[in-house]
Amino acid sequence: MCRWMAYQGDSVYLESLLFEQEHSLVHQSLSAKKSEVTVNADGFGLGWYDEREEPGLYHEILPAWSDCNLKSLARHIKSGLFFAHVRASTGTATNRSNCHPFSYKNWMFMHNGQIGGYESLRWQLDRLIPEHLYGERQGATDSEVIFLLMIANGLEENPELAISTTLMQILDLMQEKNISEPLRFTSVVSDGKEMIAIRFSSDDRAPSLYYKEFEDHIVVGSEPLDFSHKEWNLVPAGHIAKIKNHTYQIIPLPDTLKMSA
Amino acid sequence: MCRWMAYQGDSVYLESLLFEQEHSLVHQSLSAKKSEVTVNADGFGLGWYDEREEPGLYHEILPAWSDCNLKSLARHIKSGLFFAHVRASTGTATNRSNCHPFSYKNWMFMHNGQIGGYESLRWQLDRLIPEHLYGERQGATDSEVIFLLMIANGLEENPELAISTTLMQILDLMQEKNISEPLRFTSVVSDGKEMIAIRFSSDDRAPSLYYKEFEDHIVVGSEPLDFSHKEWNLVPAGHIAKIKNHTYQIIPLPDTLKMSA
Amino acid sequence: MCRWMAYQGDSVYLESLLFEQEHSLVHQSLSAKKSEVTVNADGFGLGWYDEREEPGLYHEILPAWSDCNLKSLARHIKSGLFFAHVRASTGTATNRSNCHPFSYKNWMFMHNGQIGGYESLRWQLDRLIPEHLYGERQGATDSEVIFLLMIANGLEENPELAISTTLMQILDLMQEKNISEPLRFTSVVSDGKEMIAIRFSSDDRAPSLYYKEFEDHIVVGSEPLDFSHKEWNLVPAGHIAKIKNHTYQIIPLPDTLKMSA
Amino acid sequence: MCRWMAYQGDSVYLESLLFEQEHSLVHQSLSAKKSEVTVNADGFGLGWYDEREEPGLYHEILPAWSDCNLKSLARHIKSGLFFAHVRASTGTATNRSNCHPFSYKNWMFMHNGQIGGYESLRWQLDRLIPEHLYGERQGATDSEVIFLLMIANGLEENPELAISTTLMQILDLMQEKNISEPLRFTSVVSDGKEMIAIRFSSDDRAPSLYYKEFEDHIVVGSEPLDFSHKEWNLVPAGHIAKIKNHTYQIIPLPDTLKMSA
Repeated sequence: MCRWMAYQGDSVYLESLLFEQEHSLVHQSLSAKKSEVTVNADGFGLGWYDEREEPGLYHEILPAWSDCNLKSLARHIKSGLFFAHVRASTGTATNRSNCHPFSYKNWMFMHNGQIGGYESLRWQLDRLIPEHLYGERQGATDSEVIFLLMIANGLEENPELAISTTLMQILDLMQEKNISEPLRFTSVVSDGKEMIAIRFSSDDRAPSLYYKEFEDHIVVGSEPLDFSHKEWNLVPAGHIAKIKNHTYQIIPLPDTLKMSA
Repeated sequence: MCRWMAYQGDSVYLESLLFEQEHSLVHQSLSAKKSEVTVNADGFGLGWYDEREEPGLYHEILPAWSDCNLKSLARHIKSGLFFAHVRASTGTATNRSNCHPFSYKNWMFMHNGQIGGYESLRWQLDRLIPEHLYGERQGATDSEVIFLLMIANGLEENPELAISTTLMQILDLMQEKNISEPLRFTSVVSDGKEMIAIRFSSDDRAPSLYYKEFEDHIVVGSEPLDFSHKEWNLVPAGHIAKIKNHTYQIIPLPDTLKMSA
Repeated sequence: MCRWMAYQGDSVYLESLLFEQEHSLVHQSLSAKKSEVTVNADGFGLGWYDEREEPGLYHEILPAWSDCNLKSLARHIKSGLFFAHVRASTGTATNRSNCHPFSYKNWMFMHNGQIGGYESLRWQLDRLIPEHLYGERQGATDSEVIFLLMIANGLEENPELAISTTLMQILDLMQEKNISEPLRFTSVVSDGKEMIAIRFSSDDRAPSLYYKEFEDHIVVGSEPLDFSHKEWNLVPAGHIAKIKNHTYQIIPLPDTLKMSA
Repeated sequence: MCRWMAYQGDSVYLESLLFEQEHSLVHQSLSAKKSEVTVNADGFGLGWYDEREEPGLYHEILPAWSDCNLKSLARHIKSGLFFAHVRASTGTATNRSNCHPFSYKNWMFMHNGQIGGYESLRWQLDRLIPEHLYGERQGATDSEVIFLLMIANGLEENPELAISTTLMQILDLMQEKNISEPLRFTSVVSDGKEMIAIRFSSDDRAPSLYYKEFEDHIVVGSEPLDFSHKEWNLVPAGHIAKIKNHTYQIIPLPDTLKMSA
């Protein structure tokens, strides 16, 4: 289990979200509240959009709280749409290639959750990646393979369809292999303009996903960034939050996916 | 605050202590029980004696639980006297030069605690290091300067005297500067044959120090290595545990030191 | 292109080979002589056999010359059969999962060379790895996939056959895909008792492989460990050096392989 | 010996200087031309000014060429005044605290060269740092202590005087201790508006320092960024290059300093 947050709104220094909040993501790296795992210190990552089409990326294997570079980068980098992720490994190695967010062209993705029985499915999952995308596979995580399948399933044309197609594809494979552990998937993907956050689980324990609307921005993430939780709302399980131009929309995932789960 | 353990006894693989215990030091790196700080993930270190006179050393800035090298080294290195330390920084940078244990010739030292008001005393403390030892100063921690002062104060000739002289020297400096924060010092030092563990604080909250006698070895450390705590004893504050040839002796620190504190 | 060395003989401290030679492997990491690439600083690795069945492993992403841990480990670890490797990446990331040697049970493997057109073959190559071995795939290098194919092709039963079968399998794939770049493969594999070193290329520029017999040990590696080159012999291209109990045997690879190349 | 470059001019992406030049600093990290040491791979650092008063900083212990973060940061960070440095250690550890540039408030400093006999002078040099600046001492390099002495000697009021006072102070100490090795000092310091680059040595082998005026910017550094060397000029030894608002001025260091040397 990991923790993550994503921001869309007026351009701000990353530190205003990553460090200056009462229960900022860096604070969550040391003491998360909304998950069984409280320490998320197996690497972390940042991704941010600016004038370039593709996002800037920074991945590090140190705990987020002890990386002096992160402090300075977050004080000097400004963005109107950025992702941050602190990792608690579910088995794969602590190296930069396994750190979120993952990127492809102008797209960026990060994830909290896991594919039940991943180790026994990895062979099949990697074989689902089409040849032209295989060079993008840098690490060994389930999160990266999910992202590559989303791209293969048409992320660039119809992200919502690509997401549900990918989840169904994985659920089918799990069923075929009689995996009883759940598929848990609380994620966010963006093309640099819109953020699509998803809260889904094949059982009834989808990892938490909160959002809050501020005057000039919207934040979505694993946990509220303060302890009062005031005006932080849970995205219902099985739903998507679409965030763009400082507005949001909460819509259900397709029924087919729910039946499959 | 950090956590540490030290072993003296029959030669064993390090993993039998570092990984295979219910509440091993690697377990403590993620969830310590006997301190306010539960996560000790700002680097770690190993030091072990073998046929060489000087100890072998391994320092790493990753959390102990996520370092694949540590797993393999602990499975393959055997020793009859070794130290292990997981660090929770009290302010100085996470780099290898700041990781315990520190070594000098055949001597090795590690520490849990801190010098109250260290930042305002660092200038004076470093000036107490004699010229011939100054080249040994690699990092910026209070722990390293304490060790260098112990050497300057005759560690090689009379370790107990060197320890109390050093603590008094630091307490005097703190008094001179009107520091109200305490000097906390739970440490162990060895020449490769004997281990001397010290539990001291200038207030009444000395960091914990436990020991246990097993059939063929003795372990001393910040916390018991199991949850039952059976047969684990606390070293009383203001005392030293001397451990050699699988026997131990608990003796008080000099009264002068207590009065100074 | 990388540099490596392997040792079989009386048990010695690793430093006697890794640091104390005129042109030791650590020296080669900074200034290799027998290759176009002179700097091999994209990580390194050690593997050594001792009383345990499986080898000890140490992988690091720093240049070998600047890792303080390597200095101490090499002074304190003794072995009668060990591998050391300094890496010059041919494209994949600098992370520990991509560092040699790779291991499987009691087997260990390292490699200098590359599969021509690897990026365009990776998809096919990974699909050749059988399901039961796929969990062993940790990184993204061609070297690791070669090793996994060798295991799939019977390394544990008949290593020489497994090696030539694997090379033929890769050459067939390259031919199918009309790859004109060569397959270069100067490697060594061991079960802890015997070392099998291979020098092969599908063109006439097989990466160098030298060996030398000393009084109580044999060294094989990319370059002689001294500048005189006295008594260092080249393994002929297309040949295998089998080393065990301080004796060696140079035998040709099967003709089928040569014809395939 | 290290390599560095500094840029003043129109705001540009860092990659245009760090990667896209024929003989960029990243290229120099692997194969420097103007020094005996060709590999500068013991860490590196970036410092850049933007809207904040104090510079952004990024330090890493990997070789510059193999750090994936550097590639992305240099593609996304823009600045009109920035420093970059690749390190070849002259003895001190490879850790981030020893990487250039060093900073203090809005000031930034980096250095190529060394204090002759530094190890035997470190004790005296550190004692020259005034108490109020001592907390800034993070690492163990001679470069950092030179910078702290420059601050102590009035860098913020009169940088040129502070530089020559500091050099004289060090030369006096070296003389006192009968050090015969030279003081070599090719450096640059900035307050965010002006860059002051210095080329000095107490012998006649001052480390190289080149500058070139482009249409909208000026670059100064250890080596020309192309192989033609066209329009790259050497700053004469014993001189300072003052660069501001895209103009430069070459002036001699005070005579007193030359006499002292």
